[in-house]
Amino acid sequence: MPTLVLIRHGQSAWNLENRFTGWWDVDVTEKGVEEARAAGRLMADKGLDFDRCYTSLQTRAIKTLNLALEEMGRLWLPVEKDWRLNERHYGGLTGLNKAETAEKHGEEQVKIWRRSFDTPPPAMEAGSAFDLSADRRYAGIDVPMTESLKDTIARVLPYWNSVIAPDLKAGKRVLISAHGNSLRALVKHLSGISDDEITGLEIPTGQPIVYELADDLTATDRYYLSER
Amino acid sequence: MPTLVLIRHGQSAWNLENRFTGWWDVDVTEKGVEEARAAGRLMADKGLDFDRCYTSLQTRAIKTLNLALEEMGRLWLPVEKDWRLNERHYGGLTGLNKAETAEKHGEEQVKIWRRSFDTPPPAMEAGSAFDLSADRRYAGIDVPMTESLKDTIARVLPYWNSVIAPDLKAGKRVLISAHGNSLRALVKHLSGISDDEITGLEIPTGQPIVYELADDLTATDRYYLSER
Repeated sequence: MPTLVLIRHGQSAWNLENRFTGWWDVDVTEKGVEEARAAGRLMADKGLDFDRCYTSLQTRAIKTLNLALEEMGRLWLPVEKDWRLNERHYGGLTGLNKAETAEKHGEEQVKIWRRSFDTPPPAMEAGSAFDLSADRRYAGIDVPMTESLKDTIARVLPYWNSVIAPDLKAGKRVLISAHGNSLRALVKHLSGISDDEITGLEIPTGQPIVYELADDLTATDRYYLSER
Repeated sequence: MPTLVLIRHGQSAWNLENRFTGWWDVDVTEKGVEEARAAGRLMADKGLDFDRCYTSLQTRAIKTLNLALEEMGRLWLPVEKDWRLNERHYGGLTGLNKAETAEKHGEEQVKIWRRSFDTPPPAMEAGSAFDLSADRRYAGIDVPMTESLKDTIARVLPYWNSVIAPDLKAGKRVLISAHGNSLRALVKHLSGISDDEITGLEIPTGQPIVYELADDLTATDRYYLSER
Protein backbone atom coordinates (compact mmCIF):
# COMPACT_ATOMS: atom_id res chain seq x y z
CA MET A 1 0.00 0.00 0.00
CA PRO A 2 1.52 3.34 -1.01
CA THR A 3 2.35 5.68 1.90
CA LEU A 4 2.12 9.44 1.57
CA VAL A 5 2.76 11.98 4.29
CA LEU A 6 2.19 15.70 3.89
CA ILE A 7 3.68 18.28 6.19
CA ARG A 8 3.20 22.03 6.20
CA HIS A 9 6.35 23.94 7.16
CA GLY A 10 6.84 24.96 10.79
CA GLN A 11 5.79 28.42 11.92
CA SER A 12 7.40 31.17 9.83
CA ALA A 13 8.29 34.70 10.89
CA TRP A 14 5.34 36.04 8.89
CA ASN A 15 2.90 33.42 10.19
CA LEU A 16 3.75 34.94 13.54
CA GLU A 17 3.36 38.54 12.31
CA ASN A 18 0.17 37.59 10.44
CA ARG A 19 1.46 38.91 7.11
CA PHE A 20 0.64 37.57 3.65
CA THR A 21 3.73 35.64 2.58
CA GLY A 22 3.11 33.68 -0.62
CA TRP A 23 6.31 33.29 -2.61
CA TRP A 24 8.34 35.59 -0.37
CA ASP A 25 11.11 33.54 1.19
CA VAL A 26 10.53 33.92 4.92
CA ASP A 27 12.44 31.70 7.36
CA VAL A 28 10.92 29.55 10.10
CA THR A 29 10.96 30.85 13.67
CA GLU A 30 12.55 29.04 16.61
CA LYS A 31 9.11 27.58 17.29
CA GLY A 32 8.95 26.49 13.63
CA VAL A 33 12.31 24.75 13.97
CA GLU A 34 11.02 22.91 17.02
CA GLU A 35 7.79 21.96 15.22
CA ALA A 36 9.82 20.50 12.36
CA ARG A 37 12.07 18.51 14.69
CA ALA A 38 9.07 17.26 16.68
CA ALA A 39 7.40 16.13 13.44
CA GLY A 40 10.52 14.14 12.55
CA ARG A 41 10.66 12.52 15.97
CA LEU A 42 6.96 11.67 15.80
CA MET A 43 7.34 10.04 12.38
CA ALA A 44 10.33 8.01 13.60
CA ASP A 45 8.53 7.00 16.80
CA LYS A 46 5.50 5.84 14.83
CA GLY A 47 7.70 3.77 12.54
CA LEU A 48 7.10 5.81 9.39
CA ASP A 49 9.80 5.72 6.78
CA PHE A 50 10.26 7.06 3.26
CA ASP A 51 11.99 6.49 -0.04
CA ARG A 52 11.69 9.92 -1.64
CA CYS A 53 10.95 13.44 -0.49
CA TYR A 54 9.53 16.45 -2.28
CA THR A 55 9.53 20.09 -1.31
CA SER A 56 9.19 23.58 -2.75
CA LEU A 57 11.90 26.10 -3.60
CA GLN A 58 11.13 28.01 -0.40
CA THR A 59 13.42 27.98 2.62
CA ARG A 60 10.71 27.37 5.21
CA ALA A 61 9.56 24.14 3.57
CA ILE A 62 13.07 22.89 2.72
CA LYS A 63 14.34 23.59 6.24
CA THR A 64 11.32 21.89 7.79
CA LEU A 65 12.04 18.82 5.66
CA ASN A 66 15.75 18.83 6.50
CA LEU A 67 15.12 19.14 10.24
CA ALA A 68 12.51 16.37 10.21
CA LEU A 69 14.79 14.08 8.18
CA GLU A 70 17.67 14.79 10.53
CA GLU A 71 15.58 13.68 13.50
CA MET A 72 14.63 10.52 11.59
CA GLY A 73 18.25 9.73 10.64
CA ARG A 74 17.16 10.07 7.02
CA LEU A 75 19.11 13.08 5.73
CA TRP A 76 20.47 10.76 3.03
CA LEU A 77 17.08 10.32 1.32
CA PRO A 78 16.73 11.85 -2.15
CA VAL A 79 14.96 15.21 -2.08
CA GLU A 80 13.48 16.92 -5.13
CA LYS A 81 12.70 20.63 -4.91
CA ASP A 82 10.23 22.17 -7.32
CA TRP A 83 8.52 25.56 -7.62
CA ARG A 84 5.20 23.87 -8.31
CA LEU A 85 4.99 23.00 -4.61
CA ASN A 86 5.48 26.66 -3.64
CA GLU A 87 2.88 28.52 -1.60
CA ARG A 88 0.05 30.30 -3.41
CA HIS A 89 1.33 33.64 -4.75
CA TYR A 90 -0.48 36.40 -2.84
CA GLY A 91 0.09 39.11 -5.45
CA GLY A 92 -0.14 42.68 -4.21
CA LEU A 93 -1.00 41.51 -0.71
CA THR A 94 2.47 40.03 -0.21
CA GLY A 95 4.15 41.56 2.81
CA LEU A 96 0.99 43.20 4.13
CA ASN A 97 -0.27 42.56 7.64
CA LYS A 98 -3.70 41.00 7.53
CA ALA A 99 -5.28 43.54 9.92
CA GLU A 100 -3.84 46.49 7.99
CA THR A 101 -5.10 44.98 4.74
CA ALA A 102 -8.58 44.72 6.22
CA GLU A 103 -8.45 48.38 7.27
CA LYS A 104 -7.33 49.41 3.81
CA HIS A 105 -9.52 47.21 1.62
CA GLY A 106 -12.31 46.32 4.03
CA GLU A 107 -12.83 43.12 5.97
CA GLU A 108 -15.19 41.71 3.33
CA GLN A 109 -12.80 42.16 0.44
CA VAL A 110 -9.96 40.51 2.35
CA LYS A 111 -12.19 37.60 3.21
CA ILE A 112 -12.96 37.18 -0.50
CA TRP A 113 -9.27 37.18 -1.41
CA ARG A 114 -8.43 34.72 1.32
CA ARG A 115 -11.42 32.47 0.98
CA SER A 116 -12.51 32.65 -2.66
CA PHE A 117 -11.60 29.63 -4.71
CA ASP A 118 -10.99 31.45 -7.95
CA THR A 119 -10.65 35.20 -7.27
CA PRO A 120 -6.98 36.15 -7.10
CA PRO A 121 -5.78 39.12 -5.04
CA PRO A 122 -4.68 42.19 -7.03
CA ALA A 123 -1.54 41.49 -9.06
CA MET A 124 1.81 42.42 -7.60
CA GLU A 125 3.18 45.57 -9.20
CA ALA A 126 6.26 44.94 -11.34
CA GLY A 127 9.30 46.24 -9.50
CA SER A 128 7.69 45.67 -6.10
CA ALA A 129 10.19 44.88 -3.37
CA PHE A 130 8.56 41.43 -3.28
CA ASP A 131 8.72 40.81 -7.05
CA LEU A 132 10.68 37.58 -7.55
CA SER A 133 10.35 37.35 -11.32
CA ALA A 134 14.06 38.16 -11.74
CA ASP A 135 15.20 35.79 -8.97
CA ARG A 136 17.67 33.25 -10.35
CA ARG A 137 15.84 30.55 -8.40
CA TYR A 138 12.92 30.93 -10.82
CA ALA A 139 14.92 31.23 -14.03
CA GLY A 140 12.96 29.77 -16.91
CA ILE A 141 9.71 29.84 -14.93
CA ASP A 142 6.84 32.17 -15.67
CA VAL A 143 6.60 33.60 -12.14
CA PRO A 144 2.97 34.47 -11.38
CA MET A 145 2.09 38.00 -10.27
CA THR A 146 -0.86 36.66 -8.24
CA GLU A 147 -2.73 33.41 -7.82
CA SER A 148 -6.13 32.19 -6.71
CA LEU A 149 -6.29 28.80 -5.02
CA LYS A 150 -7.58 27.50 -8.36
CA ASP A 151 -4.45 28.83 -10.06
CA THR A 152 -2.30 27.16 -7.42
CA ILE A 153 -4.04 23.83 -7.97
CA ALA A 154 -3.49 24.23 -11.71
CA ARG A 155 0.29 24.04 -11.26
CA VAL A 156 0.44 21.64 -8.30
CA LEU A 157 -1.61 18.86 -9.89
CA PRO A 158 0.43 18.43 -13.08
CA TYR A 159 3.50 17.99 -10.88
CA TRP A 160 1.64 15.49 -8.71
CA ASN A 161 0.45 13.56 -11.74
CA SER A 162 3.71 13.53 -13.66
CA VAL A 163 6.28 13.18 -10.87
CA ILE A 164 4.93 12.21 -7.45
CA ALA A 165 2.06 9.85 -8.33
CA PRO A 166 4.30 7.58 -10.47
CA ASP A 167 6.65 7.21 -7.48
CA LEU A 168 3.77 6.14 -5.24
CA LYS A 169 2.44 3.75 -7.88
CA ALA A 170 5.93 2.23 -8.04
CA GLY A 171 5.66 1.49 -4.31
CA LYS A 172 7.84 4.32 -3.07
CA ARG A 173 6.96 5.92 0.27
CA VAL A 174 6.74 9.67 -0.19
CA LEU A 175 7.07 12.65 2.16
CA ILE A 176 6.04 16.10 0.92
CA SER A 177 7.01 19.23 2.84
CA ALA A 178 5.15 22.21 1.46
CA HIS A 179 2.73 25.06 2.20
CA GLY A 180 -0.84 25.72 3.31
CA ASN A 181 -2.21 26.17 -0.21
CA SER A 182 -0.05 23.77 -2.20
CA LEU A 183 -1.08 21.13 0.35
CA ARG A 184 -4.73 22.20 0.07
CA ALA A 185 -4.38 21.46 -3.65
CA LEU A 186 -3.26 17.92 -2.89
CA VAL A 187 -5.82 17.32 -0.12
CA LYS A 188 -8.62 18.59 -2.37
CA HIS A 189 -7.53 16.21 -5.10
CA LEU A 190 -6.95 13.17 -2.88
CA SER A 191 -9.95 13.59 -0.59
CA GLY A 192 -12.35 14.92 -3.21
CA ILE A 193 -13.16 18.15 -1.35
CA SER A 194 -15.40 20.70 -3.08
CA ASP A 195 -14.24 24.11 -4.30
CA ASP A 196 -16.30 25.81 -1.60
CA GLU A 197 -15.07 23.67 1.26
CA ILE A 198 -11.37 23.54 0.46
CA THR A 199 -10.80 27.25 1.06
CA GLY A 200 -11.88 26.83 4.68
CA LEU A 201 -9.73 23.78 5.38
CA GLU A 202 -6.92 24.78 7.74
CA ILE A 203 -3.68 22.84 7.52
CA PRO A 204 -1.74 23.27 10.77
CA THR A 205 2.02 23.88 10.71
CA GLY A 206 4.38 21.00 11.46
CA GLN A 207 1.66 18.31 11.74
CA PRO A 208 2.31 15.21 9.60
CA ILE A 209 -0.85 14.27 7.69
CA VAL A 210 -0.90 10.62 6.71
CA TYR A 211 -2.70 9.37 3.63
CA GLU A 212 -3.47 5.71 3.23
CA LEU A 213 -3.92 5.11 -0.46
CA ALA A 214 -5.21 2.28 -2.60
CA ASP A 215 -2.99 1.12 -5.44
CA ASP A 216 -4.77 3.49 -7.82
CA LEU A 217 -4.02 6.27 -5.30
CA THR A 218 -7.58 6.85 -4.17
CA ALA A 219 -7.49 7.78 -0.49
CA THR A 220 -8.80 5.19 1.94
CA ASP A 221 -7.89 7.21 5.05
CA ARG A 222 -6.44 10.57 6.05
CA TYR A 223 -5.39 11.48 9.58
CA TYR A 224 -3.03 13.56 11.68
CA LEU A 225 -0.21 11.32 12.82
CA SER A 226 -0.31 12.93 16.26
CA GLU A 227 -3.85 11.57 16.75
CA ARG A 228 -2.96 7.91 16.21
CA MET B 1 35.11 29.36 -16.78
CA PRO B 2 33.71 26.44 -14.77
CA THR B 3 33.73 26.93 -10.99
CA LEU B 4 34.22 24.06 -8.60
CA VAL B 5 34.37 24.27 -4.81
CA LEU B 6 35.18 21.32 -2.57
CA ILE B 7 34.42 21.29 1.12
CA ARG B 8 35.22 18.61 3.68
CA HIS B 9 32.52 18.23 6.34
CA GLY B 10 32.89 20.13 9.61
CA GLN B 11 34.46 18.41 12.61
CA SER B 12 32.70 15.16 13.49
CA ALA B 13 32.36 13.51 16.89
CA TRP B 14 34.93 10.90 15.89
CA ASN B 15 37.35 13.44 14.40
CA LEU B 16 37.34 14.82 17.92
CA GLU B 17 37.80 11.41 19.56
CA ASN B 18 40.43 10.46 16.97
CA ARG B 19 38.60 7.29 15.92
CA PHE B 20 38.58 5.69 12.47
CA THR B 21 35.17 6.55 11.00
CA GLY B 22 34.94 5.62 7.33
CA TRP B 23 31.37 4.77 6.38
CA TRP B 24 30.06 4.91 9.94
CA ASP B 25 27.50 7.70 10.12
CA VAL B 26 28.86 10.02 12.78
CA ASP B 27 27.31 13.47 13.24
CA VAL B 28 29.16 16.78 13.24
CA THR B 29 29.99 18.41 16.59
CA GLU B 30 28.88 21.90 17.62
CA LYS B 31 32.24 23.09 16.32
CA GLY B 32 31.55 21.25 13.06
CA VAL B 33 28.19 23.00 12.74
CA GLU B 34 29.92 26.34 13.23
CA GLU B 35 32.62 25.45 10.67
CA ALA B 36 29.91 24.62 8.13
CA ARG B 37 28.02 27.86 8.77
CA ALA B 38 31.25 29.88 8.60
CA ALA B 39 32.10 28.24 5.26
CA GLY B 40 28.71 29.28 3.90
CA ARG B 41 29.13 32.86 5.10
CA LEU B 42 32.62 32.99 3.61
CA MET B 43 31.41 31.75 0.23
CA ALA B 44 28.56 34.29 0.24
CA ASP B 45 30.90 37.11 1.31
CA LYS B 46 33.35 36.25 -1.48
CA GLY B 47 30.54 36.28 -4.03
CA LEU B 48 30.65 32.57 -4.84
CA ASP B 49 27.48 31.02 -6.11
CA PHE B 50 26.43 27.62 -7.43
CA ASP B 51 24.01 25.84 -9.71
CA ARG B 52 24.27 22.27 -8.43
CA CYS B 53 25.54 20.55 -5.30
CA TYR B 54 26.81 17.05 -4.68
CA THR B 55 27.34 15.20 -1.45
CA SER B 56 27.68 11.71 -0.02
CA LEU B 57 25.07 9.57 1.77
CA GLN B 58 26.66 10.44 5.12
CA THR B 59 25.04 12.80 7.61
CA ARG B 60 28.17 14.83 8.37
CA ALA B 61 28.67 15.83 4.73
CA ILE B 62 24.96 16.40 4.00
CA LYS B 63 24.52 18.51 7.12
CA THR B 64 27.63 20.54 6.35
CA LEU B 65 26.21 21.24 2.89
CA ASN B 66 22.77 22.16 4.23
CA LEU B 67 24.20 24.53 6.84
CA ALA B 68 26.48 26.22 4.32
CA LEU B 69 23.64 26.58 1.79
CA GLU B 70 21.39 28.01 4.47
CA GLU B 71 23.94 30.72 5.26
CA MET B 72 24.18 31.48 1.53
CA GLY B 73 20.39 31.69 1.09
CA ARG B 74 20.73 28.78 -1.34
CA LEU B 75 18.84 25.93 0.32
CA TRP B 76 16.76 25.75 -2.85
CA LEU B 77 19.67 24.56 -5.02
CA PRO B 78 19.42 21.00 -6.35
CA VAL B 79 21.45 18.53 -4.29
CA GLU B 80 22.41 15.05 -5.45
CA LYS B 81 23.55 12.54 -2.83
CA ASP B 82 25.60 9.54 -3.87
CA TRP B 83 27.50 6.80 -2.03
CA ARG B 84 30.45 7.21 -4.38
CA LEU B 85 31.33 10.43 -2.54
CA ASN B 86 31.37 8.59 0.81
CA GLU B 87 34.49 8.52 2.97
CA ARG B 88 37.03 5.74 2.42
CA HIS B 89 35.83 2.55 4.16
CA TYR B 90 38.22 1.84 7.02
CA GLY B 91 37.36 -1.86 7.30
CA GLY B 92 38.16 -3.51 10.62
CA LEU B 93 39.62 -0.28 11.98
CA THR B 94 36.21 1.41 11.97
CA GLY B 95 35.33 2.61 15.45
CA LEU B 96 38.84 2.13 16.85
CA ASN B 97 40.71 4.94 18.51
CA LYS B 98 43.91 5.67 16.61
CA ALA B 99 46.17 5.48 19.68
CA GLU B 100 44.63 2.17 20.78
CA THR B 101 45.04 0.80 17.28
CA ALA B 102 48.72 1.74 17.34
CA GLU B 103 49.16 -0.05 20.67
CA LYS B 104 47.46 -3.15 19.33
CA HIS B 105 48.91 -3.35 15.83
CA GLY B 106 52.05 -1.25 16.22
CA GLU B 107 52.69 2.31 15.15
CA GLU B 108 54.32 1.22 11.89
CA GLN B 109 51.41 -0.94 10.76
CA VAL B 110 48.90 1.82 11.46
CA LYS B 111 51.01 4.28 9.52
CA ILE B 112 50.94 1.85 6.56
CA TRP B 113 47.16 1.54 6.69
CA ARG B 114 46.68 5.27 6.99
CA ARG B 115 49.32 6.34 4.51
CA SER B 116 49.64 3.55 1.99
CA PHE B 117 48.06 4.28 -1.36
CA ASP B 118 46.98 0.76 -2.12
CA THR B 119 47.11 -1.35 1.08
CA PRO B 120 43.66 -1.57 2.62
CA PRO B 121 43.17 -2.09 6.36
CA PRO B 122 41.97 -5.56 7.42
CA ALA B 123 38.43 -6.24 6.21
CA MET B 124 35.55 -5.58 8.55
CA GLU B 125 34.17 -8.80 9.99
CA ALA B 126 30.68 -9.61 8.74
CA GLY B 127 28.22 -8.95 11.53
CA SER B 128 30.44 -6.27 13.08
CA ALA B 129 28.48 -3.57 14.89
CA PHE B 130 29.78 -1.23 12.17
CA ASP B 131 28.79 -3.45 9.21
CA LEU B 132 26.49 -1.38 6.98
CA SER B 133 25.99 -3.92 4.22
CA ALA B 134 22.36 -4.48 5.28
CA ASP B 135 21.62 -0.74 5.71
CA ARG B 136 18.70 0.29 3.49
CA ARG B 137 20.65 3.38 2.51
CA TYR B 138 23.03 1.16 0.54
CA ALA B 139 20.44 -1.16 -1.00
CA GLY B 140 21.65 -2.36 -4.38
CA ILE B 141 25.22 -1.26 -3.67
CA ASP B 142 28.07 -3.68 -3.11
CA VAL B 143 29.16 -2.19 0.24
CA PRO B 144 32.94 -2.57 0.61
CA MET B 145 34.33 -4.32 3.69
CA THR B 146 37.51 -2.23 3.49
CA GLU B 147 39.13 0.19 1.07
CA SER B 148 42.56 1.54 0.25
CA LEU B 149 42.76 5.10 -1.04
CA LYS B 150 43.22 3.53 -4.47
CA ASP B 151 39.92 1.65 -4.04
CA THR B 152 38.23 4.90 -3.00
CA ILE B 153 39.51 6.68 -6.08
CA ALA B 154 38.25 3.79 -8.23
CA ARG B 155 34.64 4.58 -7.26
CA VAL B 156 34.89 8.37 -6.93
CA LEU B 157 36.31 9.01 -10.40
CA PRO B 158 33.63 7.22 -12.42
CA TYR B 159 31.05 9.36 -10.62
CA TRP B 160 33.08 12.48 -11.31
CA ASN B 161 33.46 11.58 -14.98
CA SER B 162 29.88 10.52 -15.63
CA VAL B 163 27.92 12.97 -13.46
CA ILE B 164 29.86 15.96 -12.11
CA ALA B 165 32.26 16.73 -14.99
CA PRO B 166 29.43 17.00 -17.55
CA ASP B 167 27.72 19.58 -15.31
CA LEU B 168 30.90 21.66 -15.17
CA LYS B 169 31.42 21.35 -18.91
CA ALA B 170 27.87 22.60 -19.38
CA GLY B 171 28.84 25.74 -17.45
CA LYS B 172 27.23 24.83 -14.15
CA ARG B 173 28.90 26.01 -10.95
CA VAL B 174 29.35 23.05 -8.65
CA LEU B 175 29.78 22.66 -4.89
CA ILE B 176 30.83 19.27 -3.48
CA SER B 177 30.57 18.53 0.23
CA ALA B 178 32.36 15.29 1.03
CA HIS B 179 35.12 13.61 3.04
CA GLY B 180 38.89 13.63 3.51
CA ASN B 181 39.53 10.71 1.18
CA SER B 182 36.80 11.17 -1.42
CA LEU B 183 38.09 14.73 -1.78
CA ARG B 184 41.70 13.47 -1.98
CA ALA B 185 40.53 11.38 -4.92
CA LEU B 186 39.28 14.50 -6.69
CA VAL B 187 42.29 16.65 -5.77
CA LYS B 188 44.67 13.92 -6.98
CA HIS B 189 42.83 13.75 -10.27
CA LEU B 190 42.45 17.50 -10.82
CA SER B 191 45.88 18.58 -9.59
CA GLY B 192 47.82 15.57 -10.91
CA ILE B 193 49.27 14.57 -7.54
CA SER B 194 51.33 11.36 -7.37
CA ASP B 195 50.23 8.20 -5.54
CA ASP B 196 52.95 8.76 -2.92
CA GLU B 197 52.16 12.39 -2.27
CA ILE B 198 48.38 12.24 -2.12
CA THR B 199 48.27 10.10 1.02
CA GLY B 200 50.03 12.86 2.95
CA LEU B 201 47.82 15.69 1.70
CA GLU B 202 45.65 16.91 4.58
CA ILE B 203 42.28 18.38 3.72
CA PRO B 204 41.08 20.55 6.61
CA THR B 205 37.46 20.42 7.79
CA GLY B 206 35.08 23.17 6.74
CA GLN B 207 37.54 25.01 4.47
CA PRO B 208 36.19 25.71 0.97
CA ILE B 209 38.81 24.75 -1.65
CA VAL B 210 38.31 26.62 -4.90
CA TYR B 211 39.32 25.14 -8.24
CA GLU B 212 39.66 27.35 -11.26
CA LEU B 213 39.29 25.12 -14.28
CA ALA B 214 39.83 25.47 -17.99
CA ASP B 215 36.99 24.45 -20.26
CA ASP B 216 38.45 20.95 -20.56
CA LEU B 217 38.47 20.87 -16.74
CA THR B 218 42.23 20.95 -16.29
CA ALA B 219 42.99 22.91 -13.14
CA THR B 220 44.54 26.34 -13.60
CA ASP B 221 44.47 27.22 -9.90
CA ARG B 222 43.57 25.71 -6.53
CA TYR B 223 43.36 27.66 -3.29
CA TYR B 224 41.68 27.90 0.08
CA LEU B 225 38.96 30.50 -0.14
CA SER B 226 39.93 31.81 3.31
CA GLU B 227 43.34 32.80 1.93
CA ARG B 228 42.04 35.04 -0.84
